[in-house]
This record gives sequence, structure tokens and C-alpha cells, in this order.
Amino acid sequence: MNLILLSPDDLTSSHSAIIRDVRRVAHIKNIHGAAQGDSLKVGLLGGNMGTGRVTAIDDDGISLALDLQQAPPAALDLTLVLALPRPKMLRRILQTIATLGVKKLHLINSYRVEKSYWQTPFLEAASIHEQLLLGLEQGCDTRLPEVHLHKRFKPFVEDELPALIANSRALVAHPYTATACPSQIDYALSLAVGPEGGFIEYEIALLEKCGFEAVHLGERIMRVETAVPYLLGRLF
Amino acid sequence: MNLILLSPDDLTSSHSAIIRDVRRVAHIKNIHGAAQGDSLKVGLLGGNMGTGRVTAIDDDGISLALDLQQAPPAALDLTLVLALPRPKMLRRILQTIATLGVKKLHLINSYRVEKSYWQTPFLEAASIHEQLLLGLEQGCDTRLPEVHLHKRFKPFVEDELPALIANSRALVAHPYTATACPSQIDYALSLAVGPEGGFIEYEIALLEKCGFEAVHLGERIMRVETAVPYLLGRLF
Repeated sequence: MNLILLSPDDLTSSHSAIIRDVRRVAHIKNIHGAAQGDSLKVGLLGGNMGTGRVTAIDDDGISLALDLQQAPPAALDLTLVLALPRPKMLRRILQTIATLGVKKLHLINSYRVEKSYWQTPFLEAASIHEQLLLGLEQGCDTRLPEVHLHKRFKPFVEDELPALIANSRALVAHPYTATACPSQIDYALSLAVGPEGGFIEYEIALLEKCGFEAVHLGERIMRVETAVPYLLGRLF
Repeated sequence: MNLILLSPDDLTSSHSAIIRDVRRVAHIKNIHGAAQGDSLKVGLLGGNMGTGRVTAIDDDGISLALDLQQAPPAALDLTLVLALPRPKMLRRILQTIATLGVKKLHLINSYRVEKSYWQTPFLEAASIHEQLLLGLEQGCDTRLPEVHLHKRFKPFVEDELPALIANSRALVAHPYTATACPSQIDYALSLAVGPEGGFIEYEIALLEKCGFEAVHLGERIMRVETAVPYLLGRLF
């Protein structure tokens, strides 16, 4: 937790807040070892970042006087389309994309996504929200990514994706292609990443028809949890 | 397991092998669904890659006729110096660096590395070897990284590191510096990455004295498991 994220519910006025929940209170007490008068790095969910000076630590929680004048870091100009990973990896990837500044994530079905993955409780809104918060706290950002779920590949790619990728360059990571992934771009991007084992040729063909260019990442085959930060480090 | 790795012990001649261990046999039977006559993508540890044609599946194991004429992918021209991560993350990072083509890894102590991390059984040679194999099988490579452990920061940086980074550009990832990390380099590199919370200023100063340049990755603070693929995607 490099940034203590406040929700609007924590505010007691425009310049003060009380943190009551066990997770954040324990972190502030045990990891920061905070005492009255200390300044903590805080941010308001969806708003500015700055400092929270501890004015009281008591049974009510931890009271803070806020000075939030710093804008959160710039978002990546990116729409990320990701084949739904297996549940355990999903949680890590949600954290990772929030840490790295992705603000638009579409989790989609694909031939090689196991049907059971769609049943995981980790896809419930509260669980997604929790992982995104952890990612924002890690990366020091206040703005939540939007996460959308699409359980059917073809209708999504044919009917919804064209509008989502309009005005961007659209790339799909695919090992079996001649074009290398570009680097250090300065334009709006849409990026599709397949499941373990990759998109099947039929899916690549549909994505290409929709306007995606297939690009490779070299000879090595990465896990999705490795490929996502690798691609974002290379592209942005 | 995108590549089935054979150890020299598996060879029954220069062109044949038998796979006997439960893990690989189960994978080949259950994931590949292999039958006699099928060709599998295989590699010889430390040697070439190519195909293994299944000649028999019986109580002895899975017999393969080998045709190994393809060199493994090029190694990264990189010496990676990493503050020892917490044990659970260590295993994932060992896999990741093997997948990504790192061949020289030095795990070092640092002020913010908890002493208990050095006691983990995951640092035993057999455990490290196991994770590296998983990473090579994922990335389709046959050459094992060398992993070295250094339990004392100062003697390592002062006495050993200068020779290790000779003839390379040496960078240390550090949030509190003005220089951005370069990208798409074409020279030999040494890269140091600190623990969660970063190297302390004293450590950065020692690394700079040794020849490292501090570079930042932007405003966002990444977990080590995210920073490593992010950096490698950016740099190579």
C-alpha cells in the first residue's frame, strides 16, 4: 500500500476523513507505524492525491486532516482486450493493470478459455473492485479502471469492438506472424491478448477483419501475467 | 509446458529418449493427448530443440524418436541483479526470468529484504532448478539461467559487482531520479532492481559509485514481479 486510498464514505468534511476498516487501520498502524502528527500519502478514489496528517488514533479509527492538491498520474491511452485468465491469475492481472494505469479493460471469451472460468466468484463486482483497489494502492493512482465482461466472442468482436477501437491503432499479440510489436508509441492503442495457448486462427481472422494487426513478441511464449506488463513496458 | 524439456538422463541414444517422470508423462498424456506417431515439441536441456515423435507409450514411460536441429532462442545480453524477493514471489520470478531469456541472475541482500527470506527452502538448488525448468518449458528455451546468491550487500557491490558489470551499461531502477529508463537498447546491459520499497539511498549511492546509473519508470510504483517483465519489455 504505497498510497492510502480514501473512498468518499471516509470523508467527514472536504478536508478530513476517518479510516475505520480493519485492513487499512492495521496497515497504517503496523506497516507505517503512524502516530499522531505523522503525514501519510493518501488519495481520494477518483480524485486528487496528497497528504493526510494523522490528527487522532482512537477507537473510532484513524482521523486525518487532508491536503489533496496533486492530480493522479496520467492514464494509459489504451483499451485492453484480454481473454479471461484462469481465476487465480485473474486477480493478479486485475491488480497489475490497475497499477500500470490501464483504465479500460474488456475481459472476453475465447475458444481456449475454459467455460468454468466464467463461474469464478473472483468475477463478482465486489471482488474485481477489491483487486483494482489493491492495484491502485500499489501504483499510487486514484482512478479505477472500468472492467467489462463479454461472454461471447463473435458478437463482441463483430458488434461492439469496432466502436471501442475507433480512433486507435489496434494490435493483437500473436506468435505466428511476421510483424514485430512496435515500441514507445505516442498514439491511442487498442491491444488484444489471448488466453494461454493463444487465440485460434478463426479468432485472429475475426480480429483482423475488425481492424486489428497481428504482432509478435519474439520467439518466447509468455504467460499472460508476464505478457501484459512486458507489452505495456514496451509500448508506452 | 510449451516445450517438453529432456534432460541428458532421459536419452537412450543420440536420437531417442524415454520420459518416465509422473509430471511430464501426465502432461503429455492429458494435455497433449499424445498417441503413438504424434510429434511433440521437445528440447534437450542445454542443447537444441526440435521434434520428438512418440514411438511407444507403455509402462516404461513415453519413448521418443528425436530430431533436434533448431538452436534455442538467443539469450538476453543482460546481467540481472535483484534484491531477494519474498519466497512466494521468488518462485514466480525465477520462472519469469527463465521464460524471458535472462541467463545471469544475482539475488542479493538489501536493507529492505527481510532476513527470513534467506531461510526459505525455495532457495535450495533443487527448488531453484525446478522453477527455472518451468520457465524454460513455458518460454521454449533449453538453456538454464545461472543463479547466484549474495547474502551481504556491501561486499558484493564493492568486491564482485564491478567485474560482473564490466563492458556493459549498468542501470538501477529507482523512483527518485530524473532520468527515464531507456528503451530498445542494442548493447550489453546490467540491471539492478530493488526490493519492495526500493533500495535505500545508501545502497543507491554504493551502486552509483560502482558505475550504475539510476533511472525511473514513471510515477507508478510496481511490484517486483511486474517491474521485471515491464523493464525487459521496454529495454529489449
